[in-house]
Amino acid sequence: MESILPKQIRTLITEFAKIPGIGPKSAERIVFFLLKTNQSDLDTFGSSLQSLKQNIKRCTNCFNITDNDICVICEDTNRSAAQICVVEEALDIVAIEKTRQFDGRYHVLGGVISPLDGIGPEELTIHQLDKRVRNEQPQLRELILATNPSLEGEATNMYITKKLGATGIEMTRIARGLPVGGEVEYADEMTLTRALEHRVKAG
Amino acid sequence: MESILPKQIRTLITEFAKIPGIGPKSAERIVFFLLKTNQSDLDTFGSSLQSLKQNIKRCTNCFNITDNDICVICEDTNRSAAQICVVEEALDIVAIEKTRQFDGRYHVLGGVISPLDGIGPEELTIHQLDKRVRNEQPQLRELILATNPSLEGEATNMYITKKLGATGIEMTRIARGLPVGGEVEYADEMTLTRALEHRVKAG
Repeated sequence: MESILPKQIRTLITEFAKIPGIGPKSAERIVFFLLKTNQSDLDTFGSSLQSLKQNIKRCTNCFNITDNDICVICEDTNRSAAQICVVEEALDIVAIEKTRQFDGRYHVLGGVISPLDGIGPEELTIHQLDKRVRNEQPQLRELILATNPSLEGEATNMYITKKLGATGIEMTRIARGLPVGGEVEYADEMTLTRALEHRVKAG
Repeated sequence: MESILPKQIRTLITEFAKIPGIGPKSAERIVFFLLKTNQSDLDTFGSSLQSLKQNIKRCTNCFNITDNDICVICEDTNRSAAQICVVEEALDIVAIEKTRQFDGRYHVLGGVISPLDGIGPEELTIHQLDKRVRNEQPQLRELILATNPSLEGEATNMYITKKLGATGIEMTRIARGLPVGGEVEYADEMTLTRALEHRVKAG
């Protein structure tokens, strides 16, 4: 049906539609928007895509995304060495940094334990985290587990707390509860259950 | 804040965030998704972007997007010459073609009359439509106006019906009313007003 469109337009629609969250209709709209931009902008966009992964590595210390051996956070001597915040993906670091509430270091697991997807602890950077904790103690005093509040996230937390228990490091995990701006009426049962369980002293 | 991300990642996030409908957060997610795709896919995507507008022209007859002088629809001798469906943008043709309900030709206006945006009738292809109608009569019998149901769309329809009135061509416009699957309860006043006005015999 889309054969009424020239081939290169259809090709680019297909490319955009491969991106999760962009449906075929949105892909069409995006491509027709791009048809109106000038050629030099398209050239820039295209070459940005092609060079996206150039020099991109994982930080050898925390596995954050970096274009150096060590990422900007691990390199920053102003940041506290007392806490490591353990996250699933590098994008989680961006979100936490935006809060400006944490000035420690991070550790990127590279995912969560998920037997259905064939991801066991060995596929993640838990071994390296264990090593890191042993090396950085006693300066390092706390691991903050900040995995997503999913079954897999909880299972991964559980695995980490068991595996690293021997190091004696204090381990906490970020709170579950009602999101700010959320409504009790619309909250799902699990969220409400956790919010009740982990209630804190009022006032 | 995003300075914790390598430069080429930030650049590409900016490029994606320029696209209408893609916010900074979605742009981040898209780029992190793309970081996981292999280099050859990124190369293809990038060069598709760069070559998007190569050989892309407007059909000299109907102003549809094409890589020839004449678009595939105008070229198709199996299509009826009795009707021309007038649309704002080439993307509207894609949507109407999907219904498989129309086998005439199209005419792409290139927008709508919008004095606030500095778009007058001269910026559109109304003059060419007028010429086309005169040339294609008497084979051509009907103009179907399929602009968007907005104030500008209605104003453009009005302008066309006045301007082309002298040709004696029959002019219709697509129906306004409740969208299929929509609910009376949630319909806005204007839509309900039009739905009442243009009610048809039941049963």
